[in-house]
Order: sequence, then C-alpha cells, then structure tokens
Amino acid sequence: MGESRAADPAEGRAQGLAEHGAPDVPDRRTPVLPDRRAQDLAAGLAELGCRALLVVAQSASDPDLAPFLGARAAHLGAALLVAPRGERPRLAYLNPMEREEAAATGLLLVTPEELEVLRAAREAPEPAAHLAWVMSRALAASGVAPGRMALAGLAPAGEIQAACAALARQGWEWVAGNELVRLVRKRKTAPELAAIRQAAATAVEVMKALAARVAAARVDDPGGAGDLWLDGRPLTVGRLRAEAALLLAERGVEQPHGNILAPGGEGGVPHSAGSDGRALRAGEPLIVDLFPRGAWRERPLVFADCTRTLCAGEPPPAVVRAHAAVQQALAAARALAVPGARGWDLQEAVCLTFEEAGYATPLRQPGTTTGYVHNLGHGIGYELHELPIFRKVAGAEGVLAEGDVFTLEPGLYDPAAGYGVRLEDLCYLGPDGLEVLTPLPYDLDPRRWAALAG
Amino acid sequence: MGESRAADPAEGRAQGLAEHGAPDVPDRRTPVLPDRRAQDLAAGLAELGCRALLVVAQSASDPDLAPFLGARAAHLGAALLVAPRGERPRLAYLNPMEREEAAATGLLLVTPEELEVLRAAREAPEPAAHLAWVMSRALAASGVAPGRMALAGLAPAGEIQAACAALARQGWEWVAGNELVRLVRKRKTAPELAAIRQAAATAVEVMKALAARVAAARVDDPGGAGDLWLDGRPLTVGRLRAEAALLLAERGVEQPHGNILAPGGEGGVPHSAGSDGRALRAGEPLIVDLFPRGAWRERPLVFADCTRTLCAGEPPPAVVRAHAAVQQALAAARALAVPGARGWDLQEAVCLTFEEAGYATPLRQPGTTTGYVHNLGHGIGYELHELPIFRKVAGAEGVLAEGDVFTLEPGLYDPAAGYGVRLEDLCYLGPDGLEVLTPLPYDLDPRRWAALAG
Repeated sequence: MGESRAADPAEGRAQGLAEHGAPDVPDRRTPVLPDRRAQDLAAGLAELGCRALLVVAQSASDPDLAPFLGARAAHLGAALLVAPRGERPRLAYLNPMEREEAAATGLLLVTPEELEVLRAAREAPEPAAHLAWVMSRALAASGVAPGRMALAGLAPAGEIQAACAALARQGWEWVAGNELVRLVRKRKTAPELAAIRQAAATAVEVMKALAARVAAARVDDPGGAGDLWLDGRPLTVGRLRAEAALLLAERGVEQPHGNILAPGGEGGVPHSAGSDGRALRAGEPLIVDLFPRGAWRERPLVFADCTRTLCAGEPPPAVVRAHAAVQQALAAARALAVPGARGWDLQEAVCLTFEEAGYATPLRQPGTTTGYVHNLGHGIGYELHELPIFRKVAGAEGVLAEGDVFTLEPGLYDPAAGYGVRLEDLCYLGPDGLEVLTPLPYDLDPRRWAALAG
Repeated sequence: MGESRAADPAEGRAQGLAEHGAPDVPDRRTPVLPDRRAQDLAAGLAELGCRALLVVAQSASDPDLAPFLGARAAHLGAALLVAPRGERPRLAYLNPMEREEAAATGLLLVTPEELEVLRAAREAPEPAAHLAWVMSRALAASGVAPGRMALAGLAPAGEIQAACAALARQGWEWVAGNELVRLVRKRKTAPELAAIRQAAATAVEVMKALAARVAAARVDDPGGAGDLWLDGRPLTVGRLRAEAALLLAERGVEQPHGNILAPGGEGGVPHSAGSDGRALRAGEPLIVDLFPRGAWRERPLVFADCTRTLCAGEPPPAVVRAHAAVQQALAAARALAVPGARGWDLQEAVCLTFEEAGYATPLRQPGTTTGYVHNLGHGIGYELHELPIFRKVAGAEGVLAEGDVFTLEPGLYDPAAGYGVRLEDLCYLGPDGLEVLTPLPYDLDPRRWAALAG
C-alpha cells in the first residue's frame, strides 16, 4: 500500500475498506450531524468559552472524528474537522485522491488545494511545522479567526504540542476538547445503535457456538487433571480462540483488542487473556469475554462486548456460589439502570450486594485482588471504553441517560482458589427502558444452553 | 471487557492478547533495548538538547512505545516510557493488575503506587490534569528534573496539549520527539525482522491462494460483459475479500487497515479498495494489495505489504504494456536500493523510466492522475507507513540504510481507460544486500503462477 504522509500530494494512498462506485449514496446531501449532537456540541463549546472545535485525526476511524462523519463511514486518511460554534462543521482532507470519500461525508469541505499542501511540502516539511500549517489553514478556510479553541482527536503527542505552541504565538489559545467530544457522542445516533446491535448479534452467535463446543467436549483422562477433549484432541484455549477468530471473520467482524478466554486461575485475574496452550478442564470455570468491532462497509465502526462464564462438568461449590452472586448483582444493576442514575450508584449497590454475601469489594478494600475487584461497566461505541463511566465522579460523564449504550459486568475473582466468574450484558438505555443487546443464557453449564434454546 | 480509564486502580482491565502463566520467559532479565538503538536514541536526544525522551502511550501497541518493549510484546494498557539520555529506560504503568506484563518487558519499572494513581483519581480526576499528574510523577520517579524533554507517543490531542502547558509552568519544556523515535526504529531489530518475515510469508501464501482462485474462474456469459464465474457463482471482489480474510485469520494475521482488491477502473485510482459487489471480468486487471499485521503472541506486532496485478483471460495491449513497464521499473528500483541511496533518487529514476516509456509522472506533472501518480514506497514496521520515505527530503529519514525494511511499489494508472497496474515487493536491506521478503511471480496471468510453482 502506498505511502500516506500528508505532505506529499502525489502519493498513492490506498486506505483499506474504502469503497468507490457505490451505485447510490442516498444520504450524501442530508446533514449528517443530528440536531441533538450539534446542540450538545454548541453548548459544550459555549461552556468552555471556545469559538470552535478542532479535531486532528490520523484517519476516519479516530473516535473523535468518526461521530461527525455520518452513517456512511468515510475511509479517509489524515483529516481535520473544524466545527465553529453553532455552525455546520467542515472537513479538511489532505490527500487529493480522497475527494470522493470526503464528499461522501456530506460535510462542507476544505480541499488539499485550499490547505496548500503542495506548498507545505516544500516550505514546512518537518512534521510539527506541517501540522501547524494545515491546522492554521483549515481554521482560516473555515472562517475561524485566532482565539480560544477546543482541541480533540488522537495525534502524535510531541508534534501536536509543538504545533499548538507555534500557533499560540499567532493568537490561538487551546483547551482540551477530547472530553467534550466524548460527552457529545455518549448518546448514540440511530446508525451507531444499528451497527452496535449488529456487532452484538454477531457476538451472541459466536458465544453460542463456543458454548456448544465446550458442551460437546468430554474428559479423556479419567485418572488425570480432567482435561477436556474434543474430536480426538485436547480442547485448548488456543483452539477455542482460533474458532472464535474464524467465526467472527466469517461474519465481517474484527477483534482489534483480541478477546479473553481465561480458564481457572487465569480467569481469577480479570486482566488475563488466557494462555493458548492451556487445556480446558472439567469442573473449572472458563471466562469468555468477546469484544469485537463490526467492520461492515457503510456502517459506523463500533464495538460490542459480552461475557459469560462456562463450566463443563461439576463446578466446585465456591464457583456455583460466586456465579449465583454475580448473576444476582447483574440483575440488581440492570434494575437500577434508569436515566438519571449515576454509574457510581450502581457500582455502590453491587458492592453492597457482594459485601452482604461475604465478598471483598473496592468500596471497603480499595485495591483488593479477591472478590469484586473492578468497576461495574463502561460506555461503548467507536471506542471499547467510553462514557458513561461508573466511577465516583460528579459530572454528566458518570450519569446514565437515554441513548447510552454500556456494559454491566460484575464479577468475582479468587486467583488462589483458581477461579474467576464474570457475566456481562451489553445494554441500551432506550425510550422504553433498558434493553439487553446480548441476550444469552447465564448458565454455567453449557449443556443447558442448548436445552434453553430448544 | 472491564473499563480501563487509568484513574481507577480498582478496575478490571482485561487487555486482549495478554498472556499469563507462560512457562518460561527467557528474555525477562536481558536488556531489551539493543545497544545500537540506545545509542541512536542518546545521540538524537543530544541533538535536540533534551535530557530525556517521554513516550505517552494508550497501549503497548503504540508505535513509539512498542520499539522499547523487547521481543516479548507486552500487552499493557496506558503507560509512559521515560528514557533519560544515556540511561536505561523506565516504564511507568497505570494499572496495578498489569504488573506481570510490565515485568515481562525487562524494563526498569515505575509502579502505579509510585505514580500515586489512587490519589490522582481523587485529586486530579479531570483527564488532562490526570495526564499531567502521571507524566510529572513518572519523570520524577525516573530521576529526571524539570528541563527540556522530547515528547512522543499517540495521545488525545487536547489533553496532551493541556498537560504539557500545565507542566511548562513547573519548568518543563517540550519538543517534538515522534520523528526521533521514527528514526530510532527505522533499523529493525532481529525480533522485528523475524516477525515481518513471518507476516510476509503469510501474505505470500494468501496471495498465491487468491491467484489460484482467479486462475480457476471461467467466463460464464459469452455474450455479456465477460464476468468470471467460479463454483457456479460470479466471482466477485467481495468473495475474494472474504476468502482473504479467512485465510489470514486462520494464520493468526489481522488486517487493521483492510486490503485492496480493485478491478478495472477501480484499480485506476490507487486509493480505491474495490467494491465488493463487483464481479471480476476476463481481460480486466485486478490489483491485489495485502497489508496484514501479524498478531502472534510473543512477537512484535508488525506489518507486511505486497501487491500483484492479475488478469484472467486476454489482457488489453495497454495493460500488457503498462505491466511490463512497471515490472521493469521495479527491477530498476531494486537495483538502486543500496545503503546510502536516497529514496528520492530511486523515485526520480523510476519517474525517468516511465517518462521515457511515454507515461506521465509527478516529476514533470505534479498532481497527475494518470500514469505514475504516487511515491515509490515506504518503510514498514509497527506502522504500515514509517521511515524511510521516498520524498525529496534532506535528512536521514529519506536515506536507505542497512537494517531498513521498506516496500518498492511502482504502478501505472488510467482510470478512464479502465485499468491500474501495481507491483509491490517488500524488501529488507541486509548485510548481504537487498532481499525480497515477498517472493511471488510477477505474471499478469494467474494460470502461469501454478506453472511457475511446478
């Protein structure tokens, strides 16, 4: 694939997943920024005292740029978005070959010619200087005069710092705008929700297929450690992981952050992804946590996330007890997840539930590594972790609202005792209340999954 | 998967691909930064007048952090690297649950306790303030006093800008350090090269499998447009793309930037990834450009990249002529790729070759959209596009050197005439000269690929 450094107008940038020649692009001329999102942005800029938002992005998948690109995901390379307060945003793109993608966003455009990228390549070839050049010209072409600006996007740290410092000498003042964009995209649009639903449905299918594989395995070493075998070979974490990868790839879904298939004591550390060489064992719980991202064209690139804990054979009493407590905590959390509730309220409620059952929690034992050791959930969308958050915070970032999509995922862990149990529902807080987007059995025993489906 | 915001020490971060319980970690105590890379870094810092490099990363896959993490790729979340000039670098990690990953890097560590992340969550919960907090404590714990610092990594633009501004008031001065790290990682280490070789070998296998599918297709509408059919169905771009995705996934390889399968006129725009619904046609060239990334544990996450142009049936004379010219230009470029050569020298030579053959090039027609319309190649590694570059630049970033891995990928395009032709070799400039890491037939006719293999 051709080089993409923006300084070069003659490059053959060929961004993956781009599509040309689509027969119809019905939404090309409709405004892509929903009224509500535009209002939220304008209000946020007013609060920060900023005249515009500037997003500096390396590609269309930048989580601060993607929310402005509309239902038809554009597959641009380096680009800047300028959103003057209360006005329609403009997209400045750097590669002349990307004019079709840029046009498909439906945004007002600033072209590479207006940015003078040819001149920049000669007069400001050094990366930070080049960045300052295109930032300054994108703002000018959007009619924004020097003043106080909110800055967002993901950028090379040293270069954005140097570019901002250089522009400060020309009268630009910068404030952090990433959190503003996170707040603006907290409420999902219809296309974002539809894409999350599709990714969630795929995760559900694959989770069921994995449960069926575990259910079909049998102990093949009666005198040994209880290793599970399937089709004449040990059923290892690696085999299940490879099957998950294939099943997801077949369905057009990618796993940019991998997944978690953590048996026994590995599942006792929530961080562990599980060791591929490890054979599954009877009577040992396996945490299966899938967090894929839909990679379908014409749809926003968004994540889904769900977890189940499976145990073939007879589970130890401690695991049965933990599983029941986790399922109860999850039900309690779902019942409390209403618009206006604080994420921290749910977290506290779950902690209290677990403490009553005799488990340690971070509420009374910060830093505990047994019992309930993490937070209750996280918002999800263009990033796997976004707003709302479930920590003790005061602002809107920690308050559940209609339109939010988030996980609820209580768990109990005891690495020394060789187990972890986690159950995770992906939830949409819609006009009719809470909807679970990942409907799956909760049973530890995967053989019961088939029975429940029948 | 549990929330990962670094402010929360009690979170259940579960980063994908992390591995626990590996039976042996032979390189845990060996210094991971090769002498040469350490020397290059120290020299670069001296040239910038900086006392240390600070890398702010969101994960271990940050291309400015990954080069410091050694052969055993650590799968950390948010982390900072502090490399005082001439001293061993230190890794500051934010999540107490990641202590095993952090230890596996072999680096000196700054723990979350030393960073006081618990206190930060209470006293500096706002994202930019939190970032400034951990930057300042990571530097202090590494024994670096306020002064001039090189800054690298990918970070939320507004938050890193605000954090740097706040720290500037405490005596810290920041200069852009991303390009320094790009220069330091230009020369590949042995584990990086080995991982690129493995990714390249996988791309070669998949390219051959796709060529075999095109070779097996037959025209099934003699009176029509010459659509190719295979197994009773039209052979579409989407079918081939799905096969490529499965073949790569089976081999443990991911495609974070997708791929290019661009037939006919779509291939005439180097940017185009190709439309899935489009059937392949006899006599029409198809550009196949694969740029996957190896996702094997225990290996650096690096890219490979190769391109071939395939044509089933009789190709038009213009395509045959362009293909021959491109193959000749590629051979000429390979012959010129010696240590000390400038990328621009190769680009110029290729332009002159094409101009002699009557094709337009950016050398005399900047911005041309027919003929040779892009640059010759790009370095590759943790990013798909890194150093060396093939543009007209004066510094080391544009000079080929031993240890570099880069593509050479001339092409000729005529969207109006309905074709594009590109051939791309992935090359390693080693002690014995240039080695092509993606050995594949160059033939347009995929039926000849099997003959050549036999």
